[in-house]
Amino acid sequence: MLFITLEGIDGSGKTTVSKMLKDSLIQSGHRVLLTREPGGEPLAEDIRKLILDTNQKPTPWTETLLYIAARKQHLDNVIIPALKEGIIVICDRFMDSTSAYQGYARNIGIADVEEVQNIVLGLTKPDVTIFFDITPKEAQIRLLNRKRNPDRIEKESQKFHESVYEGYQMLISENTERIKIVDSRKPINEVLQQVKFIIDNAIGDLISNHND
Amino acid sequence: MLFITLEGIDGSGKTTVSKMLKDSLIQSGHRVLLTREPGGEPLAEDIRKLILDTNQKPTPWTETLLYIAARKQHLDNVIIPALKEGIIVICDRFMDSTSAYQGYARNIGIADVEEVQNIVLGLTKPDVTIFFDITPKEAQIRLLNRKRNPDRIEKESQKFHESVYEGYQMLISENTERIKIVDSRKPINEVLQQVKFIIDNAIGDLISNHND
Repeated sequence: MLFITLEGIDGSGKTTVSKMLKDSLIQSGHRVLLTREPGGEPLAEDIRKLILDTNQKPTPWTETLLYIAARKQHLDNVIIPALKEGIIVICDRFMDSTSAYQGYARNIGIADVEEVQNIVLGLTKPDVTIFFDITPKEAQIRLLNRKRNPDRIEKESQKFHESVYEGYQMLISENTERIKIVDSRKPINEVLQQVKFIIDNAIGDLISNHND
Repeated sequence: MLFITLEGIDGSGKTTVSKMLKDSLIQSGHRVLLTREPGGEPLAEDIRKLILDTNQKPTPWTETLLYIAARKQHLDNVIIPALKEGIIVICDRFMDSTSAYQGYARNIGIADVEEVQNIVLGLTKPDVTIFFDITPKEAQIRLLNRKRNPDRIEKESQKFHESVYEGYQMLISENTERIKIVDSRKPINEVLQQVKFIIDNAIGDLISNHND
């Protein structure tokens, strides 16, 4: 039915808001699946472990292909079946993460990463993508307050995270229709209100298109 | 210097011959690296385990991307550095395996698999590829005599292995210059002689090109 993806740099607050969004949509009577990448499916979770916990240094393309391999598994076995049942799918990170983190920040090129993703993933694309906007500096402060240990990607340099942010800016400029920006520096409830406004509009569009 | 890849269905005898070829080239005074895929590098070996030992069912593209991810790691960290040092590299399975097994036999299309491999792997391609020709039926008889347990791919149906063989025939018809066929049903020493003849010619070409 509706495929929503959440994007942003680490520490942008998207994961916290995703849970509140799910509850809010369920209260409005929708069936909702909240899932996340990398992972969200047994083999995809095994690939996630390999990506995030390895002590080896993957080449940029090796890292990229592992993400897309996990994504295909998750898409075919979890996301598409849920969408076919009319469930709203909220996915914490999806294609744009790989374009921003690997395509742009790892310097292999957004265009090549998008080409491979288009070949592999087929026609199912997000209906709406929400970008949680916060500067890399502000995100860094939030990450320092986290209790769990950072993974291999979170441990990357401040410069890397700034580059990821730049990558997202490029994607936003090329996908103005699909990607909606929320100001993620605001208090969490305000961020949720912004997100709900966007999603309610998307659901409204869906219903009016359906009735046309 | 010279990048040789060995291809064929499981049970075609290429692994046994590869070791004899290596010894023979070393005796002729060459420096030689014999390596194999998937694997041949620490992270690539971890990916190999995931591909061959998983109890989950990868989608065809997930399987394909895991192979190419491992290949990129192996290519950049092992094969290219060896070639730069003037070492002859013999690789047991490479790009064509993924085109035949996944592109053709898993039915996602040789062209799409080749496109992804071309984007990811860059310009280093095999100088010469040897196809160990044996019918799937004859190969099956050899596999039954093997002592170790078959992996997830080797355990596939006879129909799958026949399809892989067909996939190789397509690749051979499209790459007549690069792929040389040896009759792998012959006794092992005769197969080795055929392979040595091809490799000696390739080395000869290399030297004459170099002197031109």
